[in-house]
Amino acid sequence: MFTIAPTARLRPTPFMASVKSEGITHATFYNSMVLPAFYGNPEEEYWRLINGVSMWDVSCERQVEVTGKDAAKLAQILSPRDLSKCKPGQGKYVPLCNHIGTVINDPILLKHEEDRFWFSIADSDIWFWARAIASERGLDVEITEPDVSPLAVQGPKAVEVVADMFGDWVRDLKYFWFKETEINGIPVALQRSGWSKQGGYEIYLQDGSRGADLWNIVKEAGAPYDIGPGSPCTPERTESGLVSVGGDTDAFTNPYEVRLSQYVDLDVPDDTVGIRALRKIAEEGPKRHQLGLKLEGEDPAPLGFAWEALVKDGQKVGDMTNCTWSFRMKQNIGYALISVDLQPGDSVEVHRPGGIVMAELVELPFL
Amino acid sequence: MFTIAPTARLRPTPFMASVKSEGITHATFYNSMVLPAFYGNPEEEYWRLINGVSMWDVSCERQVEVTGKDAAKLAQILSPRDLSKCKPGQGKYVPLCNHIGTVINDPILLKHEEDRFWFSIADSDIWFWARAIASERGLDVEITEPDVSPLAVQGPKAVEVVADMFGDWVRDLKYFWFKETEINGIPVALQRSGWSKQGGYEIYLQDGSRGADLWNIVKEAGAPYDIGPGSPCTPERTESGLVSVGGDTDAFTNPYEVRLSQYVDLDVPDDTVGIRALRKIAEEGPKRHQLGLKLEGEDPAPLGFAWEALVKDGQKVGDMTNCTWSFRMKQNIGYALISVDLQPGDSVEVHRPGGIVMAELVELPFL
Repeated sequence: MFTIAPTARLRPTPFMASVKSEGITHATFYNSMVLPAFYGNPEEEYWRLINGVSMWDVSCERQVEVTGKDAAKLAQILSPRDLSKCKPGQGKYVPLCNHIGTVINDPILLKHEEDRFWFSIADSDIWFWARAIASERGLDVEITEPDVSPLAVQGPKAVEVVADMFGDWVRDLKYFWFKETEINGIPVALQRSGWSKQGGYEIYLQDGSRGADLWNIVKEAGAPYDIGPGSPCTPERTESGLVSVGGDTDAFTNPYEVRLSQYVDLDVPDDTVGIRALRKIAEEGPKRHQLGLKLEGEDPAPLGFAWEALVKDGQKVGDMTNCTWSFRMKQNIGYALISVDLQPGDSVEVHRPGGIVMAELVELPFL
Repeated sequence: MFTIAPTARLRPTPFMASVKSEGITHATFYNSMVLPAFYGNPEEEYWRLINGVSMWDVSCERQVEVTGKDAAKLAQILSPRDLSKCKPGQGKYVPLCNHIGTVINDPILLKHEEDRFWFSIADSDIWFWARAIASERGLDVEITEPDVSPLAVQGPKAVEVVADMFGDWVRDLKYFWFKETEINGIPVALQRSGWSKQGGYEIYLQDGSRGADLWNIVKEAGAPYDIGPGSPCTPERTESGLVSVGGDTDAFTNPYEVRLSQYVDLDVPDDTVGIRALRKIAEEGPKRHQLGLKLEGEDPAPLGFAWEALVKDGQKVGDMTNCTWSFRMKQNIGYALISVDLQPGDSVEVHRPGGIVMAELVELPFL
């Protein structure tokens, strides 16, 4: 693989000096921003998340801030999930769809006030999207990218670290709820959240000049629990059945195909983007669904940049969208986006760059 | 710097096997796709572009295809440049703006037929943008990403290579005009184009399975002219005064600030996105402009991921958006996006990570 060549089109994070001093070896890009990936020992970083506590620079989960008189209206227009009961201080996971019902992002929506929201976004340009919709509909809103960069603390011991930092009130924070607070004078929002199923928090840094300070505070608070650097962890998220929008989805993937139907409320207002298409899809039923794949073979063989075809009886029946070595299951596992004709228990061929590998379809999550 | 970790969120190109066998060492990302950057010797790759001929994998210049009854209408709605006289086979450079007049992309628009267009885009999500506008306005169009991947042949000897491949008619092709053709059975569009000022063509591969074949054909045709691999070249584009949208622009940069006013026609229809804002900006005059910077110092000191502040008399007056070592000028040169109070001949401080460096403001292009 190759080294990255810097450019001003792509952005650093407020924690860059810290992640460099921690020994970052690999990174990826997300929302045109660096997303640190590895620090030299992916397996050790995995077990730290499973058994201990890990700290992640996820600044690339940028915030699309919507403010103004029509902010709540726009938030609902963009979200095929009912927000009418969402309270200030509450977060909600919301798959955003386009007009044909394709999932284009799956942010956590943070409702700060009745007229101020953050969409804490996955990897696609929701500023463009939200500005286009708002301007075309003549809504009275401002859509900005505030100086906010999340630092995730994840793993079974995360609650201890965060409680030591902020106080025992954090133990009572409900999932996706958040509170604006500060630590050593650094303004942050603290949310129970994070892209793993091991539990934890995201600390939304609200002053980009204080990245190294916040990193050091978390590192020091975590030292008694053996905290160390990590990143959103493909083996863990795959075992746990989390979806990566843009990784596991394509230009035509709707929420019903990727296990997100519980986040769609078909009775949201008719002016919600995509809701008419989603009602039709719900009625007709999806053509594809997302299942797990257990691949034969003893050696780690992760997916590269591209999906790999799934074949049954000489016909292409779907794609493998993700593949990783599971350290707990000790085999390669992946996700299938596959015809609903195929079901758990069926076997398929995975057409890999190195040749055909057999795999068994299973329900998600794996663990 | 760090190595890139592959993910299905980011895409390979049809030329990946070829660029790997050519010895790619560095890459970047552009439209979530790999953009090969260096092959081991940036200076040699620069001189090859200046004096000879270079071949570039610029698959990441993706095509946003607009087809259907309202295709021409949508193309004009998205473009603050008059397209009424654009003919099939013609291309036009079009800075796209949002509703407040910010440049959000600067594609080449290729008009194939009266109802079929490609926007050959720079690095931002124009599928999202175009789909949002088209759907909100109820236009009868389809917006897709076809299987099209440009391979650029650039440099003073490019015309010889391309004429040897396709015939002498290519010598008469006007700038940005194109023709659908084929080479050894591979369907391509051939356009006089490319992101350098050294002359050349872009060969739009229209069958992603034939990337290695097309690469080899160009390599073989170029052998008598000492062709070699290269990439969009920051030193050359900076010397030549080319703009990188997203690199040299921010969320509020309008065309008048970055020397693109000649591509805005203020009398396009009122329903063109951003035209009302652009008329107002044109009337009031921009607050910033883009100038060149000649920096003091003898050692190459390129920009990293982030802009660097320009300071005059203790006040921030602008940003350096780009900085690179010019092999011809033998000094560091860059672009200023700076208050119109500052003019060519003025000097400013550049606040660099390593300390303050003095620079002189000059007109663009440098060469």
